[in-house]
Amino acid sequence: MQADATTVQGELERALLVILGQAVRIVGAGRTDAGVHATGQTISFRAANAPDVADLARGVNALLPEDIAVSELEVADEDFHARFSATGRTYEYRIRNAPSRRPLERHREHWLPEPLDLRAMRAASALLVGRHDFAAFAAGSSGERSVRRADWERDGTLLRLTIEADAFLRGMVRGIVGTMIWVGRGKIGAERVGEILAGRDRSQAGPSAPARGLCLVAVRYERGERGEGK
Amino acid sequence: MQADATTVQGELERALLVILGQAVRIVGAGRTDAGVHATGQTISFRAANAPDVADLARGVNALLPEDIAVSELEVADEDFHARFSATGRTYEYRIRNAPSRRPLERHREHWLPEPLDLRAMRAASALLVGRHDFAAFAAGSSGERSVRRADWERDGTLLRLTIEADAFLRGMVRGIVGTMIWVGRGKIGAERVGEILAGRDRSQAGPSAPARGLCLVAVRYERGERGEGK
Repeated sequence: MQADATTVQGELERALLVILGQAVRIVGAGRTDAGVHATGQTISFRAANAPDVADLARGVNALLPEDIAVSELEVADEDFHARFSATGRTYEYRIRNAPSRRPLERHREHWLPEPLDLRAMRAASALLVGRHDFAAFAAGSSGERSVRRADWERDGTLLRLTIEADAFLRGMVRGIVGTMIWVGRGKIGAERVGEILAGRDRSQAGPSAPARGLCLVAVRYERGERGEGK
Repeated sequence: MQADATTVQGELERALLVILGQAVRIVGAGRTDAGVHATGQTISFRAANAPDVADLARGVNALLPEDIAVSELEVADEDFHARFSATGRTYEYRIRNAPSRRPLERHREHWLPEPLDLRAMRAASALLVGRHDFAAFAAGSSGERSVRRADWERDGTLLRLTIEADAFLRGMVRGIVGTMIWVGRGKIGAERVGEILAGRDRSQAGPSAPARGLCLVAVRYERGERGEGK
């Protein structure tokens, strides 16, 4: 929720107000800054006298703008909280590594024409797995987080990083990707990423990769994963 | 090229004028109405004193808006004409057949929540293959065209029609898809599509499917296919 800006939170709360006839405050599992996408965001809210969940989902979706949709809605336990109950978040970052731009994918991918060394990027991302203070990659915050997975896959000319952690520092994935791009270009060696991580100095890491390539794809809870993955 | 509208043709000609220092008129292989996408459009133009093609492509791409890109550029034979030399065009139509909308795909897919009978749609599309007058599906035109392929594939909740012909009548693919949707919903049987085709009466076919789901993916020439397919 930001003053003078259309936000996913604001749009959802407005739609819920209309359908439920009561003001609710929603809580999201993961931060998505401007330009960052989410296919697996999970939110929770409390409401009295809620209608049937299928009716509620239909009504809310009918009121939401075209760029926001509720894909599943269910009644949760009384103590469920989308943010505090979450035990893991998975983000995906897409780089189109091809000589020419892909206009139809421009909002979802970061385009880099120079060939990247995926093998070196994989070696670098493996160094991030484990519990570390990721301050080196974050935007002005620090703290230990547990990265459980950080894999690069190639799908044609698309390079896709899937990174899962218990939680992420602000700007952390974009800082990691910007540094991986340095590795892919040969500007730094893969092993240098371990040193940057250990140094916890943001000025040593690469620039933040553009928001457009980033997507929150899933949120994990004790009772299972939410989000459609893609 | 339309008065008072930004068009792909207009943008390309403007960029070429700047780089070449001469006004050129481009010719495209296939029509793409407003809202229709193209990943495999092919254009041709004549120019005197052209620079190196790699330099020309780089320069033009640097001037084009983000939603248009030149993916390949090469010197053609003197008698090459993007439209008249083309021997085939391939279009793809995407239907997202899932209960909830996919906001990130909204510009490229037609969303239909009710389950469609893909088997019936396949049976119907098979009836279109061959040389026929497709007036029943076109927007105000008629004439024989040879459909070489019309296949539906399922990729998760995405239904994708790939249709290739020597050429298409205006509005033909969208008319075909609108009619296939009738078949998928069980409103008409697959065999009825053969009767509609034979009747050449546009009023008997389904409504035109939305432009957003349609994409020109490839153009075929004697010397090979152009376009990246996806």
